Formats: sequence, C-alpha cells, structure tokens
Amino acid sequence: MDVLRWENRQLFLLDQTLLPHRTEYLTCTHYRDVAKAISQLQVRGAPAIGVAAAYGYALAAFNYQEDREGALEDYLKKAARELLDTRPTAVNLRWALEQMDRVYRTVKDKAPGEVREHLLEAAKGIHMGELKLEERIAEFGSSLIPKGARILTYCNTGALATAGWGTALGIVRTAHLQGKEVEVYVSETRPVLQGARLTAWELQQAEIPYTLITDNMAGYLFRQNKVDLVLLGADRIAANGDFANKIGTYNLAVLASFHNCPFYVAAPSSTIDLDIGTGEEIPIEMRDPQEVRMIGGQLVTIEGCPVLNPSFDVTPHQLVSAIVTEKGIIKPPYDLVKIFAEEGADR
Amino acid sequence: MDVLRWENRQLFLLDQTLLPHRTEYLTCTHYRDVAKAISQLQVRGAPAIGVAAAYGYALAAFNYQEDREGALEDYLKKAARELLDTRPTAVNLRWALEQMDRVYRTVKDKAPGEVREHLLEAAKGIHMGELKLEERIAEFGSSLIPKGARILTYCNTGALATAGWGTALGIVRTAHLQGKEVEVYVSETRPVLQGARLTAWELQQAEIPYTLITDNMAGYLFRQNKVDLVLLGADRIAANGDFANKIGTYNLAVLASFHNCPFYVAAPSSTIDLDIGTGEEIPIEMRDPQEVRMIGGQLVTIEGCPVLNPSFDVTPHQLVSAIVTEKGIIKPPYDLVKIFAEEGADR
Repeated sequence: MDVLRWENRQLFLLDQTLLPHRTEYLTCTHYRDVAKAISQLQVRGAPAIGVAAAYGYALAAFNYQEDREGALEDYLKKAARELLDTRPTAVNLRWALEQMDRVYRTVKDKAPGEVREHLLEAAKGIHMGELKLEERIAEFGSSLIPKGARILTYCNTGALATAGWGTALGIVRTAHLQGKEVEVYVSETRPVLQGARLTAWELQQAEIPYTLITDNMAGYLFRQNKVDLVLLGADRIAANGDFANKIGTYNLAVLASFHNCPFYVAAPSSTIDLDIGTGEEIPIEMRDPQEVRMIGGQLVTIEGCPVLNPSFDVTPHQLVSAIVTEKGIIKPPYDLVKIFAEEGADR
Repeated sequence: MDVLRWENRQLFLLDQTLLPHRTEYLTCTHYRDVAKAISQLQVRGAPAIGVAAAYGYALAAFNYQEDREGALEDYLKKAARELLDTRPTAVNLRWALEQMDRVYRTVKDKAPGEVREHLLEAAKGIHMGELKLEERIAEFGSSLIPKGARILTYCNTGALATAGWGTALGIVRTAHLQGKEVEVYVSETRPVLQGARLTAWELQQAEIPYTLITDNMAGYLFRQNKVDLVLLGADRIAANGDFANKIGTYNLAVLASFHNCPFYVAAPSSTIDLDIGTGEEIPIEMRDPQEVRMIGGQLVTIEGCPVLNPSFDVTPHQLVSAIVTEKGIIKPPYDLVKIFAEEGADR
C-alpha cells in the first residue's frame, strides 16, 4: 500500500486519520490540498511530510498555470511558506522545501513546462532518496537489536510515517526478517493514537508479534524487566543530540534511564538541524484542545475543559544511547556538526 | 450529589461510567447488583468500593429472606466472597467486609430482623466513618501544600472515589478553601479516563483552576518546572510503604524522583495492609483488553489487537515523599507496622 503516489498531475495521499478502519486516498490537485492534509495529520511522520511537501511544491508550479497570481517565483515562495507553516517542529519539511527551492533556482530561466518537469523530478528524487536511505538506517540499526529483544516503540515510525520502509519500525522489520524473533510493545500514543491505530496495524500486517499498551503502562513494563530496549523516531535533532519527538517520548527516556535500558533514536540525517544548538531552541507545536477532549468523535470530558496539547516534547541527549542515521550509528558524545556539517545538506 | 445512598432497603449508586455526560443512579436491590457495579467500575475508588461492599453485605441479609439458600451464615459468607472477588487489588474492600463479618458474628444469635438492622447500621457506620476520616486526611494533607502550588494529580480521588470529601483531591479542595490558590494538572488516566471524566468534572464544579493533560505529557510539565508536587491516592499500601495505585502511578513516581519533585500519597489507614511486607506481594488485577481497544464505544485499533491491561502498578516506597492518613503525615522510613499494628483495625 502506497502512503503517497503521484499520478496524472495529482498527488494521492493515504488518509491516515481513517486508519485502521478505512483505507481511503485523498486526491490533491492543489498545493493547498497538501498543506491541509499535513496540518490535519492525514499525512504525518517527519519523513513523509517532507516528501509530501516536496510534491506540494511541484504541484504549485502546475497550479500556477491556472492561478496566475504574480510571478511564478513569488507564487512558489508563497506555496513553500504555506507548506512550511503547517507543522513547525519537524525539520524534514523545511529541508525538503529548501531542496525544491534550490532546484527551482537552477532551472528558473528555462521554459515553464521544463521548470515544472524539473520540479516534479526533484520531488520524485526526494521520495526515492528517502526510500534508499531508510534501507540503510534499517541495516545499521538492526545491528543494535539482540536476538529475542523485547522492543518498546512509540508513535508511528513505519512505512506510513516515511513513505518508505520506516525508520525505527523499519529497523524492527529488518531485524524480524533477519530471524531475530523480536517482540514489540506498542504504546498507544495519545492524543492521536498513532501507536494504537497505525503501528499496531503495520506490525499485524508484517506478522511481527506485538502487544499494545496505554502510554501510562510503560513504567509497569520496565519495572517487570519486560523491555530490552526503546527504539523510536525523531522530528528534529539539535546539533548537541537533543531531539524533539512525539509528546511522551521524554517520559519514556526518563523511564529507560531510571531502569538502565538502552534508548535508541532512528532518523534520516534530514532530521538533524545543525542551525540549532540545543533542544531548548526547537519550536513546539501546540495543537487543538479538541484532540484531547474527543476520541473517535466522542467527547470524553466536559465541554470546553481546559487542556494542554503540545504535540512534541524534547529529550536531552544525555538520555540517548545512540542515534541511528543513514550514515551509521552515532554514539555519545554527539558532535553532529563534525559528522554532518559538510555532507549533511546533500546526503 | 451523593455517590451512594441507602433508601427503602435499596442502595443507589451513581453510575460513574456515564459521567460526565449523564448522571444516573443504579438501583441495587440484591448484593449481586452491588458486586456487578463494582466489577464494572460503575462505583470505583478504593474507599467508595469499601463502603459499597459494606452496604452489599447488609443487603445480602435482606436478600436472604427471599433467596433462602442454606443457612444465613453461609449465605453471607458466599455474598462476602463474591463481593471480595470483584476487585483483587484494593484492600479497603476486604477491610470493610471483615468489619461487617465481625459485626455479624457478635449479633448472629439475635432475631433475624435485629441481625439485619445491626448489619445495616454497621454499613452506615463504615460510610460515616469514611466521611469523618477524610476530613482529617484533608486537614493533615493541606499542611503539605504551599501557597500557589501547581499540583499534578492522577485518576480520581475525589468525592466520587470515596463517598465523602475525597482523599488526595480532598486535600486539594481543602487547600483551595484555605485560599492557597492552587492549580491542578489532571492526567486523563487511560484506559478508563477517570481523570478526564471524573476529576476534571469535580474540579470544574469546585471552581478550582485545572488543566487536563494526556498521561504522556507529564514529563513535559516536569521538564518545564510546571509541577510543584504530585498528590494521588492508593489502593493498597504494604507494610514497608510500597503501594499499588492506578496504572501509570509508577511512571509519575519515577518522573517526580528524576525531577526532585515531592510525591505524596493520601489514603485512609484501611488502605494499609500490614499482612503484606512489600509491594511485590500485592495482586494486580488484569482487566478486559476491550478497555484499551475501545474508547467511548469506538474501536480505536484493529479488532482483536493483542493488549496488556493491568489495572494497577506498584510504586516502591523509596519514591514516596510522604503518606497522608487520618492519623497524620508519615514520612520515611515507613515503619507502618509500628504505627498501625494495634489501632489500625478499628481506626
């Protein structure tokens, strides 16, 4: 099943808010359709939204034919801004749009049709590049997984999140295919339940043994020595190794540290933001309180109940045992500038 | 609003599974109605289920008039066993039934009508005793609350849980009435959402400022220095101070310890089980996987998804800053045998 697919000048996105009960595709004919899908979490996961945004940028070049607002350059700039503003925390989105902008600047003087084709090729290149580097992440990461490991994972870092093989869940899949007989604990990941809805579904399809828990059960598992390692993704990694990921990640990092359990992060290098020194500088998206108040269209608390709904939290690098990227496994001390400064931009 | 009320030989229980959207009372005319209400969480909270079970025992003496199965003594024994088996973790249930059994043994040779009246009076005595000691817990406990404190609480420990003023939430209410300007963070408490459904509702009615969070947001709050203390209840406390409470309590204890934040437990002394040396011996109730799979009647994951659903976890005494009971505030080292051995049984 494709998470996103380009066909006949349209981007088809699997609507992840309807999973696991319905598999329906959104048809995006305008870059604003893509922006809306990203902000409503119909497409989600840092790598996948990067790819979707790249296609959104390409789509804008086609939309310009009808919209004809100002110059193409300005139109694309506005599109990129709208796409970027959908989610402030994940940096792959910005990375992908910067790549697209770079390509635009090299082809801007060509004929309009050629510009459009170049941008579309660039988006496809980002998409294919993503697939390739996820295979490398999975290969490197699986070396960290002992035979019979009981792995606690969080949110969704599988094919649905990445438009490819998956990051953290890609490692789990590769370890499974290598015959390592892994077992997975899936934390449901409130409020949007990406673990319960998406990760459980992916593991079921991959026939990997798993057990779903509510997020507050993690401590119980650790205390009973039922977790051998924690493995999850990242939405943005600062130069010192601090990282932002789905709200609740920090809870797990503290619990893992308290129980001397390895805590691994897997992400493509496009997730690393060398412009940011520490996690304190990462902007945290605050989302609609209704996400907490309602579940599956049902109000679970009183109407208008005061709610806090940060979409992410920041985990300090001291709690991270290793970061797995397509360049290999990075262990502390995390001098990410040294590793990624020259080659990071073009991976 | 009464959580439970005895009237015309009937026990009326506020059906807490329907809150906060509907306030409906269950009418219990048979002890088995009470047992069913306890096991289905229609009445919940360790102190409240103790009181409900005491009324259930008294009800059994009335039911015997119609059922006439064997001797009254055996009938009551069977009723007590069925009531006890509804929830294995909270010990107040056992304590209340033992009290009722003790009363029965002192009046068993009286006329049947007198036996029934004595048992009913005993149940009412347990109910009234509960109210009185909760006031003392609240008085003692409020001395731990600094002015302006931001308090993180968990599950529901208010009037709904106790048939009275509340334990941990009773302390919050008293501190509020004392003008301490407290603010409360309410953790929603998956899977049954007692925090979101019940605690938020009670705080709203009491006009105490609060904010609802999902359970996985606690770490975010601690890291941002937004929590001054954690205050919650207990379902069973072992002789060494280890305690069982709603699943997720241990997560918060570890987070509080990691952030050097005080972590307080409030419970009546009927929660203390001196027969149990450490928390390892406390039986943990495993509940129906459907509680995790479904929210508000909606399936949130795939059908038949493998699920773990322990209703409680155990927190070791090393992580507890103080235990508040009606006898006062107990600080480490917790030698509960010395404090409660002689007088504990009769409070």
